Amino acid sequence: MPPIVGVIGGGQLARMMIPRAIELGIELRVLAESDGMSAQLAATAVGDYRDADTVLAFARDVDVITFDHEHVPQDVLAQLIEAGVSVHPGPAPLAIAQDKIVMRQELSRLGLPVPIWASVTTPAELDTFLMDNGGRVIVKTPRGGYDGKGVRLVSSSRDVADWFEAGDPLLAEELVSFTRELAQLAARSPSGEISLWPLVESIQQDGVCAEVVAPAPALTAGRSDAAAEIARSVAEKFGVTGVLAVELFETSDGRLLINELAMRPHNSGHWTMDGAVTSQFEQHLRAVLDLPLGATAARSPWTVMINVLGGPTSGTIADRYPIAFANQPTAKFHEYGKAPRPGRKVGHVTVSGDDLDDVVYRARAAAAILKD
Amino acid sequence: MPPIVGVIGGGQLARMMIPRAIELGIELRVLAESDGMSAQLAATAVGDYRDADTVLAFARDVDVITFDHEHVPQDVLAQLIEAGVSVHPGPAPLAIAQDKIVMRQELSRLGLPVPIWASVTTPAELDTFLMDNGGRVIVKTPRGGYDGKGVRLVSSSRDVADWFEAGDPLLAEELVSFTRELAQLAARSPSGEISLWPLVESIQQDGVCAEVVAPAPALTAGRSDAAAEIARSVAEKFGVTGVLAVELFETSDGRLLINELAMRPHNSGHWTMDGAVTSQFEQHLRAVLDLPLGATAARSPWTVMINVLGGPTSGTIADRYPIAFANQPTAKFHEYGKAPRPGRKVGHVTVSGDDLDDVVYRARAAAAILKD
Repeated sequence: MPPIVGVIGGGQLARMMIPRAIELGIELRVLAESDGMSAQLAATAVGDYRDADTVLAFARDVDVITFDHEHVPQDVLAQLIEAGVSVHPGPAPLAIAQDKIVMRQELSRLGLPVPIWASVTTPAELDTFLMDNGGRVIVKTPRGGYDGKGVRLVSSSRDVADWFEAGDPLLAEELVSFTRELAQLAARSPSGEISLWPLVESIQQDGVCAEVVAPAPALTAGRSDAAAEIARSVAEKFGVTGVLAVELFETSDGRLLINELAMRPHNSGHWTMDGAVTSQFEQHLRAVLDLPLGATAARSPWTVMINVLGGPTSGTIADRYPIAFANQPTAKFHEYGKAPRPGRKVGHVTVSGDDLDDVVYRARAAAAILKD
Repeated sequence: MPPIVGVIGGGQLARMMIPRAIELGIELRVLAESDGMSAQLAATAVGDYRDADTVLAFARDVDVITFDHEHVPQDVLAQLIEAGVSVHPGPAPLAIAQDKIVMRQELSRLGLPVPIWASVTTPAELDTFLMDNGGRVIVKTPRGGYDGKGVRLVSSSRDVADWFEAGDPLLAEELVSFTRELAQLAARSPSGEISLWPLVESIQQDGVCAEVVAPAPALTAGRSDAAAEIARSVAEKFGVTGVLAVELFETSDGRLLINELAMRPHNSGHWTMDGAVTSQFEQHLRAVLDLPLGATAARSPWTVMINVLGGPTSGTIADRYPIAFANQPTAKFHEYGKAPRPGRKVGHVTVSGDDLDDVVYRARAAAAILKD
């Protein structure tokens, strides 16, 4: 019998696990939110991941449960554990990923570098935080945010008056003066093996990852080592299993600060599918099955990944293949099986090569054809 | 709507098309011979490819029909064409692939280099051919042979007395004195675009491809050009669409002779999945959909592919992953979802790198763990 991995959530991250599962002979089963999701091909069940009975029924006979997202409620996770199901990442690291205030508390407790932050429950608390931190700060809803949603730049508590109405605490953070954003991808297995990919630069647009350059240009060894050490600490001390992404600010005064954590394969790691010996999706499968991890070296001096956001203004991505393939024969095209919609991540393009300017040019040209 | 490719045959070649189809957002549908075939995940129908009604029903609503093997009968192909189905490769090149005597006739007609050959229908004809060609020759059944089956080394017509009983002609060929076997992989689209991968060396064991080294070591530019020219001629003059493999003998006196043709993705091209910018499976999908072809450059100085023949003596390939992954973290493992059986191709392993000796060592070590 092949190993069986059950994935909760049918989005593009689950979809991108399928190819390597096929190649390794691992059976992948997906619990999708609805019909026609990105990971449809491997969907063996459709249902609500917040419903314990649905999830328990799905988890029967799998060797391990893992995730396309971090939103499975703690009480459902607890029932899985109680039923003897192997769950990776487990409830404890997921609890940290599920609440940005908890995440900041835990990171601070470990002494890991984070922006100055506060949990604010009233407009008065936020106004005090604003006054202490230059008059402009970032406010985030602790739960459910992604891709820039649930994040605002505010200069007055009035800017998030609607969020205060719910009465729940909000996360306030200093507006970090950063030169660029970096991301350190790692994987950890239940046995404790850790692997790290090269540190990359990620370029955001409107709060969404738009481009990734691997490795991050002009890195000192000290900077790479610091990022690796942060990811290693997070993985070990939070007991993360599977892939972990640590999004970092590189500050103008040369520090690294943790911006976000993702305890799953991550957009900043899509370049590994074409650019690294072992992709984040293969590594995630290896890790959650507690198999030895694969080599993470880059296959080329440079790899650039560009998201296709929104998709073409008319027709489908595949309609653009005749032009895109002809123009950029070295580009690797990835399509997520999702209908185009403004700002939506519907695919990505990767180009690898020896000359960074040339690689960036080709990747942008290829992605532009899919978006125009 | 995504493009839809229908594949007749559910073996490992169909299986290995699935990952790239997913990544490109191409819908792949497979007509499998039975349940539980290698390409099960994409099997939308199970039936006999020799039955026209079965094949016609399967072909409804696909954009193109292509193949896991070359055995679909000509009358079935003719009915597909008559029904207006796009079929790639088409009936004419498949007729050449289906009969080794026809293949030799057509290659000779075009003046392409082949071993000395004859069609022999009686023992007396074979004995004459034996006498003219050094007393030891190769005899092949024109149809249905693969992986060394239907091929014998004979020194007397008595060695193939059983084959003569059917009364059909046999193919007799000189025993070529070759230094090694090479393979030239190519792809051609219906529009006429042709792409060629680097020329590789293939090492056979008992008539089965065991190892492939890409590119073939110690190649002169003249040798590469000659192989490319042969593949280009075959693709153009036979009107091949999709992937074409030309297996070649490099003779001790420096010539290239065509040994076999395969008009589909081929074992000698499995290295491209991990070792080339565009794999043979992606290129086949692009070609049969008449999309522009992808770049075929090697990703590393050396890539070595080793077949897993037979599989482990006990348990499954996946049972060996803990040891294999730990020992060879740079190896890429491919499993075909087939039960182990002596001599059967159940998977392959690929390693890429800068030093050929090291790459060969690692690939052999990885494959050995899966076979022991």
